[in-house]
Amino acid sequence: MIRSGLGFTAFYSQRHWKRVCNSETTKNVSMTYFLGIRLFSLLGRSRLDEAPNRRLLCSSLVSERENQLPEYIRNIKYCSRCGSKAEWKIPTGDNRVRAVCSRCHTVFYVNPKVVVGAVCVLEDKASVILCKRGIPPSYGKWTIPAGFMEMEESSFQGARRETLEETGLKIQKGQLLGVYNLVSAGQVHLIFRSELSELEEFAPNNETLEVELFPWEKIPWDNLAFATTKWALTYARDTRFEEIVVPQVITKN
Amino acid sequence: MIRSGLGFTAFYSQRHWKRVCNSETTKNVSMTYFLGIRLFSLLGRSRLDEAPNRRLLCSSLVSERENQLPEYIRNIKYCSRCGSKAEWKIPTGDNRVRAVCSRCHTVFYVNPKVVVGAVCVLEDKASVILCKRGIPPSYGKWTIPAGFMEMEESSFQGARRETLEETGLKIQKGQLLGVYNLVSAGQVHLIFRSELSELEEFAPNNETLEVELFPWEKIPWDNLAFATTKWALTYARDTRFEEIVVPQVITKN
Repeated sequence: MIRSGLGFTAFYSQRHWKRVCNSETTKNVSMTYFLGIRLFSLLGRSRLDEAPNRRLLCSSLVSERENQLPEYIRNIKYCSRCGSKAEWKIPTGDNRVRAVCSRCHTVFYVNPKVVVGAVCVLEDKASVILCKRGIPPSYGKWTIPAGFMEMEESSFQGARRETLEETGLKIQKGQLLGVYNLVSAGQVHLIFRSELSELEEFAPNNETLEVELFPWEKIPWDNLAFATTKWALTYARDTRFEEIVVPQVITKN
Repeated sequence: MIRSGLGFTAFYSQRHWKRVCNSETTKNVSMTYFLGIRLFSLLGRSRLDEAPNRRLLCSSLVSERENQLPEYIRNIKYCSRCGSKAEWKIPTGDNRVRAVCSRCHTVFYVNPKVVVGAVCVLEDKASVILCKRGIPPSYGKWTIPAGFMEMEESSFQGARRETLEETGLKIQKGQLLGVYNLVSAGQVHLIFRSELSELEEFAPNNETLEVELFPWEKIPWDNLAFATTKWALTYARDTRFEEIVVPQVITKN
């Protein structure tokens, strides 16, 4: 989409020259139409506050423009199907800037990823399993077993797999405990609570330095790896005697 | 990963020569080590039934091998960062086959996508908003407003955006109603229930043929677009007088 010959281009930006556009105004859009929208916005037309994340940038410096694209789009420079150059533009009938192949026109959608995990509580509800992280980020800090959900599994199967991989424990059932939207990270965390009917053997793997059973009052609250760890543990503790839990939904920008 | 000179290669397959491998057995794995694992499995070593989706294939026909890779990996043939050829292999420290750039070694992870939507119920709890789909799949069938969650939004913000785009209605708040794992589609649906405090104007857009308010007893149950539509509507109807709803979690393979 580097059309320096034209002297203008419309770009998606997180920072500058913000212009919100919705599906109505960007249907079947061309670069020329974009400039029209931009000029139109400068004249004060702005009824589109319901879509705060769609922004449009006009700039004359190609390198600056590239830097202003979100990294998840900027990193797509070639088509993964045919190897041709990717362009950044709003595909016909869409309303967001995407990476699109200049030859085969494949559109590369980037969407949030799902992280799945489990708060594993002992049957007496007095203790919980934590892992000390052996990899960055938050190396050496404590967390619940969790990781990216993979293809060909459900969210609970993913939480079970992560628990097995990181602690050696096999959990059988789980109730959804929390849904955590980490907007800037592009992640949705689905955290389950699970009961360990008897304390089986547990062991760290090479992504985990230690696995330990903590009574609630001894949880290292000041040394937890992530905000989501704290949310999930706090909510699991507060609802530990409730047979059915209503999952909390938290959003962090 | 096409090493026909060696006469063997390890591949990820959905159908043939299934061999489950876990993190312990596939750490820092090489192709040679793979063959070892394969032979080992043929000798009957199999303690890894907890990870049913990781499968390993040995085959001598390159085209056949490619066809046996899941489409979401097979489609990645080039690196989207540098344009070089992608290989399919298990990266060091991982335990699944991924597309990896042969030059810059970027790993291309493919994970399930999140679909967000809303069951919009009128304040009196008697009627619900449905859209008739104007695009495939399920063209002409009825559904709730829903679509892929985008970057830079929370799951509810996504449900709100989809509702606005497909019906013109602005929902303000929502309670999580259901989490639906569609395993073979690689999707997790997060569906909210939302109350329309007063019936504002609604209108279809070009992805939607009609938008209509249906009393529960007149919902076209036999003409709904997706299984998830039926699950969400049934559960929303059954819990419509409950102030707080415990989201249902359903998995479909």
